[in-house]
Amino acid sequence: MKPAEARRRFALARIAHLATAGSAGRPHLVPIVFAVEGDTVYSAVDYKPKRTTALRRLANIAENPSVALLVDHYDDGDWDALWWARADGTGRLVVPATPEERRALDGLQQRYAQYLGRPPPGPVLAVDVSRWSGWAARA
Amino acid sequence: MKPAEARRRFALARIAHLATAGSAGRPHLVPIVFAVEGDTVYSAVDYKPKRTTALRRLANIAENPSVALLVDHYDDGDWDALWWARADGTGRLVVPATPEERRALDGLQQRYAQYLGRPPPGPVLAVDVSRWSGWAARA
Repeated sequence: MKPAEARRRFALARIAHLATAGSAGRPHLVPIVFAVEGDTVYSAVDYKPKRTTALRRLANIAENPSVALLVDHYDDGDWDALWWARADGTGRLVVPATPEERRALDGLQQRYAQYLGRPPPGPVLAVDVSRWSGWAARA
Repeated sequence: MKPAEARRRFALARIAHLATAGSAGRPHLVPIVFAVEGDTVYSAVDYKPKRTTALRRLANIAENPSVALLVDHYDDGDWDALWWARADGTGRLVVPATPEERRALDGLQQRYAQYLGRPPPGPVLAVDVSRWSGWAARA
């Protein structure tokens, strides 16, 4: 799959998976809702009570900014319909109360009605994508 | 979510996501179909033409056996229905033509009709789970 097509499919998906790894190299994995702006993927720490481990993704990124994001389509009855799109890049925290944070929150609110009345309270995470890639069973 | 409940929900899901990281700590992420036996999750490299990068997961595990697997439920209309279950553990290749490989392939074929007529040709990956965990929006 060409990078532009991988980016297009990624940007339209409703949920992605974020993989991080701290300095010890231990992978961590979490589902996220997100918004794509250019080659940056924004998400927010939001929809659950926070415990210490809930912020593992942020601690990992502070230690090791390399991250991978994946969007995929699965169909139990038709494996010829399977596809996935991946974004490899580097993660960073968006500085609060900046124009970038406002744009990111706008993007999230435009995509998810749940954010409209209740903006995500947690920090906004940006992933600057260096490589879009993908695969589809049906070429 | 208690570990037993996380394991139960995980084992029933149809697809999971596998995160690995090589010695450089760069996360890699791929969707897998799988079968759980006890505290081991089996998957196979199977359903697509192999290119070099398709085996990244195996190269990463050889360098760094720590892996994370995630299963999750997303519902665009009802965020109170969201949940996920995670399996942290260590990955290894199953030795071909052993009883364990036959059990793993049996388990995969029992869960996925697509494997019945066409067993996965690739190597079988085992993840020995050291920790089952999970979260549900609706407690």
